[in-house]
Amino acid sequence: MEISIQVLHGPNLNLLGIREPDVYGRETLQDVDEMVRAEGESLGVEVHCFQSNIEGELVNALHAAREVHQGIVINPGALTHYSIALRDAIAGIGLPCVEVHLSNVHAREEFRHRSVIAPVCLGQIAGFSLQSYQLGLHAVVHHLRQKGAR
Amino acid sequence: MEISIQVLHGPNLNLLGIREPDVYGRETLQDVDEMVRAEGESLGVEVHCFQSNIEGELVNALHAAREVHQGIVINPGALTHYSIALRDAIAGIGLPCVEVHLSNVHAREEFRHRSVIAPVCLGQIAGFSLQSYQLGLHAVVHHLRQKGAR
Amino acid sequence: MEISIQVLHGPNLNLLGIREPDVYGRETLQDVDEMVRAEGESLGVEVHCFQSNIEGELVNALHAAREVHQGIVINPGALTHYSIALRDAIAGIGLPCVEVHLSNVHAREEFRHRSVIAPVCLGQIAGFSLQSYQLGLHAVVHHLRQKGAR
Amino acid sequence: MEISIQVLHGPNLNLLGIREPDVYGRETLQDVDEMVRAEGESLGVEVHCFQSNIEGELVNALHAAREVHQGIVINPGALTHYSIALRDAIAGIGLPCVEVHLSNVHAREEFRHRSVIAPVCLGQIAGFSLQSYQLGLHAVVHHLRQKGAR
Amino acid sequence: MEISIQVLHGPNLNLLGIREPDVYGRETLQDVDEMVRAEGESLGVEVHCFQSNIEGELVNALHAAREVHQGIVINPGALTHYSIALRDAIAGIGLPCVEVHLSNVHAREEFRHRSVIAPVCLGQIAGFSLQSYQLGLHAVVHHLRQKGAR
Amino acid sequence: MEISIQVLHGPNLNLLGIREPDVYGRETLQDVDEMVRAEGESLGVEVHCFQSNIEGELVNALHAAREVHQGIVINPGALTHYSIALRDAIAGIGLPCVEVHLSNVHAREEFRHRSVIAPVCLGQIAGFSLQSYQLGLHAVVHHLRQKGAR
Amino acid sequence: MEISIQVLHGPNLNLLGIREPDVYGRETLQDVDEMVRAEGESLGVEVHCFQSNIEGELVNALHAAREVHQGIVINPGALTHYSIALRDAIAGIGLPCVEVHLSNVHAREEFRHRSVIAPVCLGQIAGFSLQSYQLGLHAVVHHLRQKGAR
Amino acid sequence: MEISIQVLHGPNLNLLGIREPDVYGRETLQDVDEMVRAEGESLGVEVHCFQSNIEGELVNALHAAREVHQGIVINPGALTHYSIALRDAIAGIGLPCVEVHLSNVHAREEFRHRSVIAPVCLGQIAGFSLQSYQLGLHAVVHHLRQKGAR
Amino acid sequence: MEISIQVLHGPNLNLLGIREPDVYGRETLQDVDEMVRAEGESLGVEVHCFQSNIEGELVNALHAAREVHQGIVINPGALTHYSIALRDAIAGIGLPCVEVHLSNVHAREEFRHRSVIAPVCLGQIAGFSLQSYQLGLHAVVHHLRQKGAR
Amino acid sequence: MEISIQVLHGPNLNLLGIREPDVYGRETLQDVDEMVRAEGESLGVEVHCFQSNIEGELVNALHAAREVHQGIVINPGALTHYSIALRDAIAGIGLPCVEVHLSNVHAREEFRHRSVIAPVCLGQIAGFSLQSYQLGLHAVVHHLRQKGAR
Amino acid sequence: MEISIQVLHGPNLNLLGIREPDVYGRETLQDVDEMVRAEGESLGVEVHCFQSNIEGELVNALHAAREVHQGIVINPGALTHYSIALRDAIAGIGLPCVEVHLSNVHAREEFRHRSVIAPVCLGQIAGFSLQSYQLGLHAVVHHLRQKGAR
Amino acid sequence: MEISIQVLHGPNLNLLGIREPDVYGRETLQDVDEMVRAEGESLGVEVHCFQSNIEGELVNALHAAREVHQGIVINPGALTHYSIALRDAIAGIGLPCVEVHLSNVHAREEFRHRSVIAPVCLGQIAGFSLQSYQLGLHAVVHHLRQKGAR
Repeated sequence: MEISIQVLHGPNLNLLGIREPDVYGRETLQDVDEMVRAEGESLGVEVHCFQSNIEGELVNALHAAREVHQGIVINPGALTHYSIALRDAIAGIGLPCVEVHLSNVHAREEFRHRSVIAPVCLGQIAGFSLQSYQLGLHAVVHHLRQKGAR
Repeated sequence: MEISIQVLHGPNLNLLGIREPDVYGRETLQDVDEMVRAEGESLGVEVHCFQSNIEGELVNALHAAREVHQGIVINPGALTHYSIALRDAIAGIGLPCVEVHLSNVHAREEFRHRSVIAPVCLGQIAGFSLQSYQLGLHAVVHHLRQKGAR
Repeated sequence: MEISIQVLHGPNLNLLGIREPDVYGRETLQDVDEMVRAEGESLGVEVHCFQSNIEGELVNALHAAREVHQGIVINPGALTHYSIALRDAIAGIGLPCVEVHLSNVHAREEFRHRSVIAPVCLGQIAGFSLQSYQLGLHAVVHHLRQKGAR
Repeated sequence: MEISIQVLHGPNLNLLGIREPDVYGRETLQDVDEMVRAEGESLGVEVHCFQSNIEGELVNALHAAREVHQGIVINPGALTHYSIALRDAIAGIGLPCVEVHLSNVHAREEFRHRSVIAPVCLGQIAGFSLQSYQLGLHAVVHHLRQKGAR
Repeated sequence: MEISIQVLHGPNLNLLGIREPDVYGRETLQDVDEMVRAEGESLGVEVHCFQSNIEGELVNALHAAREVHQGIVINPGALTHYSIALRDAIAGIGLPCVEVHLSNVHAREEFRHRSVIAPVCLGQIAGFSLQSYQLGLHAVVHHLRQKGAR
Repeated sequence: MEISIQVLHGPNLNLLGIREPDVYGRETLQDVDEMVRAEGESLGVEVHCFQSNIEGELVNALHAAREVHQGIVINPGALTHYSIALRDAIAGIGLPCVEVHLSNVHAREEFRHRSVIAPVCLGQIAGFSLQSYQLGLHAVVHHLRQKGAR
Repeated sequence: MEISIQVLHGPNLNLLGIREPDVYGRETLQDVDEMVRAEGESLGVEVHCFQSNIEGELVNALHAAREVHQGIVINPGALTHYSIALRDAIAGIGLPCVEVHLSNVHAREEFRHRSVIAPVCLGQIAGFSLQSYQLGLHAVVHHLRQKGAR
Repeated sequence: MEISIQVLHGPNLNLLGIREPDVYGRETLQDVDEMVRAEGESLGVEVHCFQSNIEGELVNALHAAREVHQGIVINPGALTHYSIALRDAIAGIGLPCVEVHLSNVHAREEFRHRSVIAPVCLGQIAGFSLQSYQLGLHAVVHHLRQKGAR
Repeated sequence: MEISIQVLHGPNLNLLGIREPDVYGRETLQDVDEMVRAEGESLGVEVHCFQSNIEGELVNALHAAREVHQGIVINPGALTHYSIALRDAIAGIGLPCVEVHLSNVHAREEFRHRSVIAPVCLGQIAGFSLQSYQLGLHAVVHHLRQKGAR
Repeated sequence: MEISIQVLHGPNLNLLGIREPDVYGRETLQDVDEMVRAEGESLGVEVHCFQSNIEGELVNALHAAREVHQGIVINPGALTHYSIALRDAIAGIGLPCVEVHLSNVHAREEFRHRSVIAPVCLGQIAGFSLQSYQLGLHAVVHHLRQKGAR
Repeated sequence: MEISIQVLHGPNLNLLGIREPDVYGRETLQDVDEMVRAEGESLGVEVHCFQSNIEGELVNALHAAREVHQGIVINPGALTHYSIALRDAIAGIGLPCVEVHLSNVHAREEFRHRSVIAPVCLGQIAGFSLQSYQLGLHAVVHHLRQKGAR
Repeated sequence: MEISIQVLHGPNLNLLGIREPDVYGRETLQDVDEMVRAEGESLGVEVHCFQSNIEGELVNALHAAREVHQGIVINPGALTHYSIALRDAIAGIGLPCVEVHLSNVHAREEFRHRSVIAPVCLGQIAGFSLQSYQLGLHAVVHHLRQKGAR
């Protein structure tokens, strides 16, 4: 299995499925991780997942990914809107990265429309609940395989 | 075949594949349409494609879709950033809509970061070249099937 | 019948009465036109109605009005907020014009508060559903008759 | 006579007809009031008029209207642009209110385009000289009668 | 009884308890005043209450307080957001002042987040319904007693 | 004595000389008024003074001045920065008006740099303590005499 | 003892009482915690205190509070102005929260006036030194008891 | 004749010479076109002219120009200020383009100072009435001949 | 003669009286200088005048004034709005300075409302034609004599 | 030879042709001046050229032009974006003026899009290298001859 | 050795020398630390270095420095632009601090021009690669020795 | 001696040491120049110093430096914040340049935080009094020697 993808979840995503299940659904972060790993398997890639509420630990995880993974799928949560440290980490490691969001951030409060992360990613996928992760995984794997093909 | 999706391309997308093939690739809009239709077939949905350089014709196409399609995938091109008429049309017809972009608009000029369309869509997918359309098709079909299941 | 008024409807107004009848009422655009024409009759003026989703066709209609009508009642719809072309057309033909809106645009999203059209009109009437058109017709006819009296 | 409307005039409107008659016309505020009362009679409603240069007296008048009138027509004058107290009073009493202006505020200085009052009104009518009041009266009466009919 | 506090209520607070009792509660301004006076008694301080819808009368009340009271608790209502006159009056009389709000102004419309009054007060308490007044009274009395102790 | 000037003082100016005498000097508003009246005498003009903390009373005073005075010297105090009602009153009465300030508003908080009053005055004089009034009186009398000479 | 409150202190609050005692007082964070716990006792509620300089640890503490406490009193320190992660954590756990500040943030640098936390809290209390915590405790306990009573 | 230039006129330019001849002169768009064609002849280049009030038709005309012309002179009219579709079309076809305006847009309303078109043109010429077109023609022909010489 | 004042005129003031005499009057800068010197004589102070179109020469003149004059009256002309060098020079020399303007800058284009000079002056006098200089001279001499008296 | 034109070059234009010849071309300012003078000859007008790095010397040159030239072609260089002194000089002398730029300022850094000079010129020509001067000369001469013809 | 300096490196600086060596040079953070320690030795001061990707750990390090070091050299990395917590920590410990940057932040993206840290430092040094640290060390040591000498 | 550095001082720096010696120290600009020259000697480079209050003379000095010096150290004084002419001159001559400031501009008034010069320099050093020049000299010499070594 040649391609390995790091999936990163930012602050508060560990609450997924626990609170307000009628709104956000009953899937927990563990369910998401299993679903994404299963999707990875069907695509023939390895998927590793990590969540932290601490910005710097996500930066550390990105640095660590540099040596052992080929691509990143990240849901930066609230850090999307101000963590230039995360932005610099993504730009610094040079791996292709896809930013994903469960909700359609462009339809929420004004301050959520702006991402400081997206400009250093391949692209952004927002608004499709858990499926956003799957679409993100497809996008980064497709990108790696196309690059490999060239 | 129960689900039918309208794919809409905004201004200048008819130039795709014709100009600067080294940058944008050699696929023409016809290739995109075929690729998306093929993807639709594999998903078991019908896909209809339409391109126009005229904002009002896209509004007309959205109105027409109301009766005959169940979902929309739209690349509004430059209209993304100012066509409130397109926004109102999408909101007005009430069909689930996904906004897609070939390039990562969040990494381009400041004025391209803002979409007046996205707030009335399910979500936005930007930055994955032609694959953005495929991901968008998956997203809207997935949404329709989940809704159908409920 | 000496006075003739052109009533113009902008993008998406053709959906009126068709979608969400519980919110916007069951009157269609045809009903509006009939109602305005009836009102015109009671005021002793001729009323002609035209709707288009294409900005340039509304500009064309304004140009055409120059020769055959004496006043304009326009609901520019979404174009209210960005169509400087419409603004220039109204200023260019020199006919008295009243801008009308079904909803109270000043109570909606921030970007709907600003009209680029209103500064070249006699005035603006917003928020009174179908009655906005009737009030607008009264206003422009009153203006023309006062001007005629002088 | 079941419906009674309070017409309110804000600061400086007492100068009407006295200063610059060639610009603003020769009608005084008394003429306006008589005209509006006459219009009310023809509509079968009672009209009461009040003018004050003091923001708080207009707030008091709005509070008093709560018990004895069914609707409000208000020309807030300069207070349109900053009196959040007036806005809160209108929102607080819960009566339907129409904001009117003699001049087309949207065609004047930038700061006059914004109304802090309009978002809590049914709508706004601006630019038709004295007729703005008549149109406003029609609008609020029409609203009350439609509501009554339901 | 050595300490005497002036409690001031700005525009529209006289409507308290009268309108929308299900939202704002059934306590009237009289109830608030009694409650605050009772609280004052339990703290061993005298409390005087005054409400006005007229900005200048509140300025007058602040000036008058200079000679006869030792501290101020003020809910400026809508004036919070624009009355520099009130701000200058508070700064001018030199008495410690606490700004209170029934609702959490920081969670309401954008323009309500900014207070032109707060910078010249000891501090601001917002969001705790009638209790905001009690907390404000505690804060200003505590401040005066601490100052007295020094 | 042919020329008569109305001197107006806005909110909080009645506190002059009473509070913080080491900062603002020991002259009270009565001293200012006497000083300005004396200056008027030496210039051969009559001077009438009026102070109010209520915006609308200043508007009333301006309206009243229209018939009995030839010029205005006004220190609008805090109203300088937001009272469009005062602005409209000055513009409405058509008398030459000079805006004066004790302190150099341009060297204070950002929001004090902007005057909504000054654009409808002959000019503005700020920063010269009590002398600002004297300079303002000179300016308006000089203007009236020049105009008279023409 | 049925009610238990989590008191959270953000970055740099551990320096309290150690640096510049003449300005901030000689009470250390330990003194604050004891004082708040004592106040809690007198109110019949349990109080737990936690400080961290790491944003993510405060997020973790909020998540943990979900199961074991009924309310939150938080002084987010500098995080007040940019930590959307903290905001989302508070909104996510659904416990009533009061934001407190030692100093009157509304009287300090412009950037300190804005709180990204306050919109998801019951309210904000700022400017009363250590007493801010006590007032905050009262507010959240009062809220819980009222809710309990309903 | 080797060089062929497409001259494009945006919305409302068809009114030229018809309305307000004392202001804009008596030359109609036909006169302009003849004048520019004559100028083209004297420069030894072919000139084709096209006007439309519909943004998308101008986009179509630009696309069509790609195959048959070597340069563009465009007066986008009102579209200058918001048509990113026109901008993308010009950038897309890769022909040298000169933006021209009859009036000095930099001396008109604030919103007319900004061109979204100019950044993708060789340059902009504004303010010289009909001569602007002649100067624009010279500029693009000069550019093409210099490029040809290299 | 103990007090000596430097009067400085900024760019373009040398055109005074020469161009558009019907607008700006027929007095040349020489007339202004004589008038101000005469006024100085009547006040018992010496007045020296200097004009330059070069920002740095005005800075030099301010530096030179430090040793030989006691006060400054300056009309910075266009430099008012951007010359921080002039601002720093005035702050640097420590002499009392009065900023004067012939026209009412607060009633002109938006960018003329802001002075970068005024914050380091005693005050600003604007709008009284040539008399602005006389009022400025009075203000600075009055200031110096008051200071001398203390 | 009846018409004489002053051509003015602002700061740093004396470096033309000396630095980075591969980018800006090998023509020096002397070459530009000769080329423009030759063009002038072919148009039958006299051309005088002047360059300065000192804003005030350009103001002086404009003043001097008032008596001896009939029109101005100016490339203000960096002064374009902030020299209100230059703007006032051009407005003051009343000669028709054309602003020219070698580069397309509208396609460069944001701050270069705005010209404080252009609003007082006939128009602006930007982006055509040395040809910009020739086009500018044509424009001002054409304007003068048309005016002469009237 | 009497003076001891804490050198702090913010997020992502641990990647130094590892990624893109052709751009950022081949020196690793270890090399930087050795170089700065050597420089410290030559200046006769002790240097301690610490890097963290976690904002709060840098705050902790600053607090710890209070007792054992006399000055700070900090490269806050991305935290420069938003970490008010870091700002408050530096202000809180009261040690002289110099902010350093490898790159010239003023020449990069707009958001990098602003430092929330610099206002509480002695000063800022940006743009000199590794040498920035050496210059920063010199600056803080020089400051400490001057202060010691006083 | 192969390397020669031009040190440039902008407006008002000639006042150094003369005014407010208690604040800015007693060193005059002559002392600074001697100190920097001595530092240059110890570094084995020649240092030439020049001060002017005239923007254009500094531009001239930069142009002249092109031929005879290898690097620039500049304290642009107030010109830092608006002189695009200085910026263009530095960019134009292509010599490495270091911007220095005596005070920490980032801790002063808002408008002093922005430098229009810094983006075209190697970097900026601000806040270290006279030592800023020495650090700047080190930086530019180090840069030149590194470049020479390559």
